[in-house]
Amino acid sequence: MQEYSNLFQLLQKALHEEQTSLHNAEPKEMYEPMAYIIGLGGKRVRPLLTLVGCDLFDVNPEIAIPSAMAVELFHNFSLIHDDILDNAPLRRGNTTVHEKWNHNIALLSGDGMMVKGFQVLAKSKPEHIHALLNLYSKTGIEVCEGQQYDMNFETQSKVSVHEYIDMITYKTAVLLGCSLQMGAICADASITNQNHLYEFGKHVGIAFQILDDVLDVYADDEKFGKQVGGDIISNKKTFMLLDAFELANSMQTEQLTYLLSNKEITNEEKVKKVTAIYNALGVKELALAEANNHTDIALKHLSELDANASKKELLKAFALHLLNRDN
Amino acid sequence: MQEYSNLFQLLQKALHEEQTSLHNAEPKEMYEPMAYIIGLGGKRVRPLLTLVGCDLFDVNPEIAIPSAMAVELFHNFSLIHDDILDNAPLRRGNTTVHEKWNHNIALLSGDGMMVKGFQVLAKSKPEHIHALLNLYSKTGIEVCEGQQYDMNFETQSKVSVHEYIDMITYKTAVLLGCSLQMGAICADASITNQNHLYEFGKHVGIAFQILDDVLDVYADDEKFGKQVGGDIISNKKTFMLLDAFELANSMQTEQLTYLLSNKEITNEEKVKKVTAIYNALGVKELALAEANNHTDIALKHLSELDANASKKELLKAFALHLLNRDN
Repeated sequence: MQEYSNLFQLLQKALHEEQTSLHNAEPKEMYEPMAYIIGLGGKRVRPLLTLVGCDLFDVNPEIAIPSAMAVELFHNFSLIHDDILDNAPLRRGNTTVHEKWNHNIALLSGDGMMVKGFQVLAKSKPEHIHALLNLYSKTGIEVCEGQQYDMNFETQSKVSVHEYIDMITYKTAVLLGCSLQMGAICADASITNQNHLYEFGKHVGIAFQILDDVLDVYADDEKFGKQVGGDIISNKKTFMLLDAFELANSMQTEQLTYLLSNKEITNEEKVKKVTAIYNALGVKELALAEANNHTDIALKHLSELDANASKKELLKAFALHLLNRDN
Repeated sequence: MQEYSNLFQLLQKALHEEQTSLHNAEPKEMYEPMAYIIGLGGKRVRPLLTLVGCDLFDVNPEIAIPSAMAVELFHNFSLIHDDILDNAPLRRGNTTVHEKWNHNIALLSGDGMMVKGFQVLAKSKPEHIHALLNLYSKTGIEVCEGQQYDMNFETQSKVSVHEYIDMITYKTAVLLGCSLQMGAICADASITNQNHLYEFGKHVGIAFQILDDVLDVYADDEKFGKQVGGDIISNKKTFMLLDAFELANSMQTEQLTYLLSNKEITNEEKVKKVTAIYNALGVKELALAEANNHTDIALKHLSELDANASKKELLKAFALHLLNRDN
C-alpha cells in the first residue's frame, strides 16, 4: 500500500530502534530471541493500523508510536508462545524461537516481551495511558482466551460455527480492532469514533480469518505459497469443516468422519474427497457469504466514522486489499 | 504479625473476590489454574507490603488494593512459569500447575495471569496509573531478567558473588521494593519517600535471600521443614558456594570441584564434606555479615522515611520478623 508509505516509514524507523535496543540489552539469552522474532518481519499490519487510527483524525501519528510498538511487541510475544504450544518448527520460513534456542528460553523471552509491551505503552502521553492500558490489557486477555478455545477445539468433539467465530474473534480479530482504537485514543477521538474503528478492525479480522480458511482449500497452489489443503490434512476445525458437519446428511457425516479418522488414505486423496463434500454442500459459498457479511459490517462502521474523508477511503482500500485474495 | 491483622483482613477479602472471579471465568482450562495457584496460599508478603506502603502515610489502604492484587497476580504468574522452567513437581506442598494440568495449560494460564495483573492495575486511581505502570512493568522485566541470569548460572562455570547478588536482586528483591513503592504511589508520597521505601524493600529482599541460603545448610532439620543441604546436593550456586570458591586455596578448590562432580558419593557425605569446607572458610559468617549489611542499609532507608513514626516501627518489626530465622 503505497498510500501508507509515510506511515510505514515512520513505523519502520521505530521498529528498527526497538530492535536495536533489544539486540543490545542484557541478558542476551532473553533479549536476542525478541530481536530475532521482530526481525523476521511480517506485514506489520497491526502497528500500521495504530498509526492509521491516529492519522485518520489528522493528528500527528508520532504520538501513537508507543501504542504501535506495544501492539507489535504483544503480537510477537504471542507468536513465540503460540509456536511452543503448537510445537511449530517454522515461523515465516525461519526456525521458531523454541527450536533455535530451547523451550525455556522461548518461554522466558516471550514473557519478557509481553511485559516490555506494557513498559513501552507507558511512554504514551500520560492522559491517554489509562484508556490505553484498559483496552490493551483487555485485548491481551482475550487473545489468550482465544488461544485456549482453539486448543480446546482440538479435543472437543462438537464445535459449532458460532463457537468458531467467537474463537477467531478473540484469537485474531480483537487485536486488529484494538490496534486501530489505540491510535484513535492517542488522537483524542470520541468514544463513538473509537468504537466504530474497533468494530471495523474486528470485523475485518473475522472476515480475513474466514477467507484464510477458504484460501487454504481453494487457492491457486503456486500463488498461495504453501500446500493447499493443509487444514484438511491436519483435521483443523475451520469454518468450512464445521459448517459441513452442521449441514451434512447422515451419509456425508459418516464419510467426513471416516476421512478424518482414516490414517491409511493418502493426503492427496483426503483433500480431494473432503473438498468434494465441501463442494456438494456449498460451504465455500457459505464461508464467502459469512466473510462478506463481516466485511459489510466493518464498512458500515467505517462509513459512520467521523474522520478525514479521504483517509477513510484509504483505509477502506487498505482493508479491501487485505481481503482481496484469490478466491 | 498480629499488628497487621486489619490490613491482612482487607487483603484476604480482596484475594477471595479475585479468586472467586477467576474460578467463575471462562474458558475454565485457562482460569482454573489461576484460581488454583492463588488458592495455594503463601504468606502474601508482597501484597501486604503494598497496603503497608500506603498505610504508612495514613492514607486509606483500600485505594492500594488494585496494586496489591496486581503484585500478587504477577508473583503467582511467575511461580507457574518458574515451575515449568525448573520442571518442579511441587509448589507449596501441592502439585504444580504443569503437572496437575499440562505444559500448554500452564504456559497459557501463566500468560493470562500476567496480563490480568496489568488489567487489575488499571483499576487504580487514574492519576496514579502512569507511575504505577512504569514501576510495575520495569520490575516485571527485571524479574524475568533475574530468572534468566539464574538459568544462565546453571551452566556458567564461573559466577562471582557480585553477579549472584545482582541475580537475587532482580529475581526476588526488586518485587518487594516495588510492592512497597506502589503502595506509596497510591498514597501520593513524595518521590524521596517512594525511593526510601523501594530501597528498604529491595535490601530486605536481598538479606532474606542470603539468609535463605544459609538456612538451607545450617538450619535445624525439624524446624526447617525440608531437607537440610538441598542446595549442596543440587550444586546450586548459592552465596556461600560462590564465596567458598572465591576464598578457597588450590586444595580446597580441588576438593569442592571433586565433591560437586562426583556422582558416587552419598548425599549425606557430600553435604557433610562441603559444609566442612564452608566451616573452614567461614563462609557462613561472611554470608551473615552480607545479610546484616543489607539489613542495615534497609533500616537506614526506613529511618530516613518521612512517615507515621509508629507505623515505621511496625514495618521495622515486620521486616526483622521475616529475617529472624533459626541461624
